[in-house]
Amino acid sequence: MSLPVSPLAPKGGFPALPSIGGLRLATAATGLKYVGRDDVMLAVLDPGTAIAGVFTTSATRSAAVLDCQEKLGGGSDGPAAILVNAGNANAFTGRAGVEAVLELCKATSEATGAAPSRIFTASTGVIGEPLDHGQIAGHLDTLAGSAGTAGFEAAARAISTTDTFPKGAGRTLKIDGRTISISGIVKGSGMIAPDMATMLGFIFTDARCDQATLQRLVSDANASSFNCITVDSDTSTSDTVLVAATGASGIDVSESAAFADALHAVMLDLAHLVVRDGEGATKFCKISCAGAASDQDARQAALSIANSPLVKTAIAGEDPNWGRIVMAVGKAGVTADRDRLTIHFGEIEVAREGWVSPGYREEDGAAYMKRDEIEIAVDLGLGAGSATIWTCDLTHQYITINADYRS
Amino acid sequence: MSLPVSPLAPKGGFPALPSIGGLRLATAATGLKYVGRDDVMLAVLDPGTAIAGVFTTSATRSAAVLDCQEKLGGGSDGPAAILVNAGNANAFTGRAGVEAVLELCKATSEATGAAPSRIFTASTGVIGEPLDHGQIAGHLDTLAGSAGTAGFEAAARAISTTDTFPKGAGRTLKIDGRTISISGIVKGSGMIAPDMATMLGFIFTDARCDQATLQRLVSDANASSFNCITVDSDTSTSDTVLVAATGASGIDVSESAAFADALHAVMLDLAHLVVRDGEGATKFCKISCAGAASDQDARQAALSIANSPLVKTAIAGEDPNWGRIVMAVGKAGVTADRDRLTIHFGEIEVAREGWVSPGYREEDGAAYMKRDEIEIAVDLGLGAGSATIWTCDLTHQYITINADYRS
Repeated sequence: MSLPVSPLAPKGGFPALPSIGGLRLATAATGLKYVGRDDVMLAVLDPGTAIAGVFTTSATRSAAVLDCQEKLGGGSDGPAAILVNAGNANAFTGRAGVEAVLELCKATSEATGAAPSRIFTASTGVIGEPLDHGQIAGHLDTLAGSAGTAGFEAAARAISTTDTFPKGAGRTLKIDGRTISISGIVKGSGMIAPDMATMLGFIFTDARCDQATLQRLVSDANASSFNCITVDSDTSTSDTVLVAATGASGIDVSESAAFADALHAVMLDLAHLVVRDGEGATKFCKISCAGAASDQDARQAALSIANSPLVKTAIAGEDPNWGRIVMAVGKAGVTADRDRLTIHFGEIEVAREGWVSPGYREEDGAAYMKRDEIEIAVDLGLGAGSATIWTCDLTHQYITINADYRS
Repeated sequence: MSLPVSPLAPKGGFPALPSIGGLRLATAATGLKYVGRDDVMLAVLDPGTAIAGVFTTSATRSAAVLDCQEKLGGGSDGPAAILVNAGNANAFTGRAGVEAVLELCKATSEATGAAPSRIFTASTGVIGEPLDHGQIAGHLDTLAGSAGTAGFEAAARAISTTDTFPKGAGRTLKIDGRTISISGIVKGSGMIAPDMATMLGFIFTDARCDQATLQRLVSDANASSFNCITVDSDTSTSDTVLVAATGASGIDVSESAAFADALHAVMLDLAHLVVRDGEGATKFCKISCAGAASDQDARQAALSIANSPLVKTAIAGEDPNWGRIVMAVGKAGVTADRDRLTIHFGEIEVAREGWVSPGYREEDGAAYMKRDEIEIAVDLGLGAGSATIWTCDLTHQYITINADYRS
């Protein structure tokens, strides 16, 4: 099926991203599943590149995820490579899945000269079907030979599955008068929940950073970016975000708060793009919870609202149905007092201290809900805990995508 | 909006339920919200009736729920009464909500002669709007005067909101050659729609049972009946199930396993009826999990499958998409080993030890998914923990009910 582009896609199209020294990209069409489009991306990285990553916490995670997790922290000597295919997730494929990852790493090593321990792979697509790794391996010499010819937009397109637009984000910053660049791409649309989604993200920077520091920066930034989005509360077997710091700029960023901020900004931009391409999404929603007994409670309450089918369908129907928000707070399993709860839609105070606000007019709420971007803020009135989650609405198109077509 | 009757409704219509000595039912139309139908039910119960109950665990539960919870265990002297209204849930209505419950109990006490401490109320419908308790109280003398004139079907209709059919179930059993009867009604459709479809259940028996024992029996039976269903994972502010034992049969059932079984059977029948009337439901689904490290793990895994939007839409689309079941097990947060997982659709083994079963044919799975009633069984292959959850699919009609119409 061919899906219409999400109404929430950025109006300007794919952004112009800074190129990253020490990185060479290539894409190819293997015909493994898709016809008439590239479906494999190879990123070749210069010697000394530090690679950090965050992954799905699923108990049924894929062989590629397990392999990446083992290799992180294994040193930054020699060149490295990242190989990604779309169309087959190589998940729940038993021993054959492990074998496929080994074979792909071996073939990539032979084509690029990077050691197998420096090859990271990710796969996205159908679950449970054996991955024909030979068909991908057959393209590796060509891919390695053309490394450097593909841009970020082509790479973003090559790794996409049900995505309706290619997703990228970047930042540049100056440290001591010299420029550092960060460019990233991401794919994901459904099966999106914190602890990540059927989501693959690859972020590259020419900053210099040791692996342990980079891993800490990535894990920290992940906690308030990719781990704060949800489309449908379903968690994938394959989620992978890899961040590669080539060091080509020669600038060490281990101590730079500005770099940490820029990295976080790129990751948050990419996370928001995934929500904007959420299956069937027509509204981009920011759900904030404050006044909770703890940040964890706030996160749990905000997630309960963001994942509630009744809240999500109310938003889809442009219905200012704050009763459903009360319900979602109530079921969240966190400390809450009905008679201290305050709810805002944007600037509009809807409910205060357990009842509808005296000045609230239903027509104001209804007008607010017609916006493309909705902000719902609840205050539990109990403590200093707070959290923010981004999500989208639940529409007929979500059902159409996931029920009306055979995957 | 007028909804079509659920395709999963029992073919035979409302069942013939045994009458219960010591119970007199009445219904009335207050015009509070609905036009042309009864919307209030009064159950008057003879002196000595023991009343037990189970309730929503929501942190934002309604004033009526809190009032019922306080009164349980307060002794069985004198007559008792249960008053239920549909159309307004009296939830999230602050002090006014508490006041409304007090006033309704007072009016019911005056009309029936039962002490206020023996009056139990339940309300279902819109959240956040003040309940006009005076309009209900004005009908109480008539209701009390006509007690005994209404049957269970009329009572079931009077308490319904978005239900598409009235729901009742009963059992009779013999103890020492004498007959004991149990009859119950329930309403609910989105197991959680604080808006229009919270679940209320009322079960009556002529058995004699002390309150503490009855409460234990009800809590036990609830754990494997009402607490094992989910329509959309949302939890109401008002869920209430009350069980009243009038003792009119003269038969003490405190020690009777047969009575406990019959009570559980009635509660399970009623719970299944709620799933069969799940908003937009076209498939009745039994999700079993075995081989878990504990019963709690099994329950969590089964609920994760039952509540997954991607699993529910696959069922709606008659798609034997077992990869989504793997995903749902993986995200459940329970101990699981991808390479020990077995999945069955009914008798069909779909996957074994982390991969598709050698003999599985996609067309067999697809044929199975065309049924009205689907059984999905997963075995984690780890221990002896097991659990069963009943749910329905997620369809366009659910979106239509909850998004396309303003509540």
